[in-house]
Amino acid sequence: MNLPLHGSNPNYLYKALNIEIPSEIIDFSVNINPFGPPSSLVEKWKDWLPLIQDYPDPKARELTSLISKIEKISVSHITLGNGASELITLLGRKFSGQHIGIIQPTFSEYEKVTRAAHCPASYIYLKEPNWSLDFDELYKVIPTIGALFICNPNNPTGHSHSMNDLLKLLEICEENNCCLIVDEAFYDFQMEYNSLSSYIQKSNYLILIRSLTKMFSVAGLRLGYLLANENIINDIKTLQPEWSINAIALEAGKECIDEHEFVQQTQLFIQNERERITTFLTDNGYQLSDSCVNFYLLKDPTLKSQHPLLEYLLMKGIVPRHTENFPGLNGTWLRLAIREKQENDMLMEALLDWNK
Amino acid sequence: MNLPLHGSNPNYLYKALNIEIPSEIIDFSVNINPFGPPSSLVEKWKDWLPLIQDYPDPKARELTSLISKIEKISVSHITLGNGASELITLLGRKFSGQHIGIIQPTFSEYEKVTRAAHCPASYIYLKEPNWSLDFDELYKVIPTIGALFICNPNNPTGHSHSMNDLLKLLEICEENNCCLIVDEAFYDFQMEYNSLSSYIQKSNYLILIRSLTKMFSVAGLRLGYLLANENIINDIKTLQPEWSINAIALEAGKECIDEHEFVQQTQLFIQNERERITTFLTDNGYQLSDSCVNFYLLKDPTLKSQHPLLEYLLMKGIVPRHTENFPGLNGTWLRLAIREKQENDMLMEALLDWNK
Repeated sequence: MNLPLHGSNPNYLYKALNIEIPSEIIDFSVNINPFGPPSSLVEKWKDWLPLIQDYPDPKARELTSLISKIEKISVSHITLGNGASELITLLGRKFSGQHIGIIQPTFSEYEKVTRAAHCPASYIYLKEPNWSLDFDELYKVIPTIGALFICNPNNPTGHSHSMNDLLKLLEICEENNCCLIVDEAFYDFQMEYNSLSSYIQKSNYLILIRSLTKMFSVAGLRLGYLLANENIINDIKTLQPEWSINAIALEAGKECIDEHEFVQQTQLFIQNERERITTFLTDNGYQLSDSCVNFYLLKDPTLKSQHPLLEYLLMKGIVPRHTENFPGLNGTWLRLAIREKQENDMLMEALLDWNK
Repeated sequence: MNLPLHGSNPNYLYKALNIEIPSEIIDFSVNINPFGPPSSLVEKWKDWLPLIQDYPDPKARELTSLISKIEKISVSHITLGNGASELITLLGRKFSGQHIGIIQPTFSEYEKVTRAAHCPASYIYLKEPNWSLDFDELYKVIPTIGALFICNPNNPTGHSHSMNDLLKLLEICEENNCCLIVDEAFYDFQMEYNSLSSYIQKSNYLILIRSLTKMFSVAGLRLGYLLANENIINDIKTLQPEWSINAIALEAGKECIDEHEFVQQTQLFIQNERERITTFLTDNGYQLSDSCVNFYLLKDPTLKSQHPLLEYLLMKGIVPRHTENFPGLNGTWLRLAIREKQENDMLMEALLDWNK
């Protein structure tokens, strides 16, 4: 089935499935903070109008310096992107022509950019039911590739690998001159995530991608950053268009990066809601992935393909993310975001009705 | 001398030259509309806050459709960019590894992106004093290259080539399977510019780049578009990161694209000011390029390098654009934008003092 490749912009999904869009829809296909942007950002919006006139600082010095302080990593190890998706594209280009590994199922952009950069790709599949790393396979593949993409916590499963497993993975990569690219776009939704960021200044093979658009609900502005050794940072900067990060995103980033309390409140809410939803849906016969972030995989185990459930929810105005184009899933699950309490209630009610 | 490669962000220039930044500076190094953004855009700013939360439409259907109507070109011949600079970078990548021609002196990004894409570059120099096309040289070079970059009206000279010359150039390119990339970033500052856009649907070798950031003073938002045949458009889209154009730029674009009166008022003001400045400065012994847009080259013909004049103006708080890194100019001119009347007066006064 030829469904849109991404979440967001649900009208494309309704159109592809030839389903009439209900008057009200709730979009569970986008993994954005249900709280919306921090209030500081809303308050400052009117002050930012004058910024549209001038070119943004191409070196993004102020925001880079703030990230440097918070991450305790020198500015020479940091570069910003027009969303994490630009950074992923630039990495595709950096490794252009090299053999690339991708730990699947995962975010489809890694595969898209490696294909555009003429990189042959090897998939290493996570092992169900725990979505754990298949080290037997990794030991075989890593010596044959120039870089390995892994998303952690993973999109679409929401599963997070242990620090032990990540360090073991980094060690295998380093022994084989393979760059380990960890997309940590959702790391800050997990209450006790141990990022690999403290290894950035020690490793020549570690690359971390961060996004500010998910936690701070600024997907419309586009903002992400990349942590790596200085040579990789310089390569990425050379490949990047001039003034790639717009002035409003830079300003919003400066506002968001210090919002520790907002992040903690979000983490707590997400954890409580996830537990509530998981308990309810498991009790009602659904199967859910072991997520630690703001989305999860769900299936009705009585169905082989979840397509009928997808269509049922869409008709009810509830938009899940299909998994047709996730290698290893192929439509056998749906991905759902954790949204506001009342919206999660409506989802649970609809799923209860389906199950009756 | 290692000066910053671009206009804008003048603090980098002061720092490089070790000159203390005066308390007030006027930036003549950026070629932006002195009127600022259209008032419609200022009025709507507060309504755009909610747009930051959602992913922008990756297909930018609404703005693309508006451009299609105005340009009378099918949407399949149009793609948007995160500023014209992203489109230039993507073109560099599209022609990766091929031999590229650049008509110099011109905007430095063409050379930067071809170098990043490992494209050997041939320069064809414009002939002074009229900055005209050197067809003898072009006949020799075009058969050896895959694409040719030309900026028209040209940055930094402000000179515009005749329609006859442009069509002759397109014909030579077509006969030799060479893509002609015309950067029309400043075309709308000229009162009677004949764009090549009416040839887009007929030619397989013509690529036009447009910018919305100069005329509408939205350089901080980043927005440009590219016109070309469908195959080229598809190639560019494949290479572009997902959601590359932010939601605010898309909305501002929809507002600006219809601002015909604003454009006409700007053109008239620019033409009058340019004539006033040219007459005054020529009468006072300066040499100016034959510009038809909102900036011009200037030199004190008694100096070999304009560096002392650059430093003098910087100390007075007037920021010109140096030309050290424009091949063929190498610091023998300064580039100056046309700004508001009073600011242009201050520039003329400072240049009068220098000349005494």
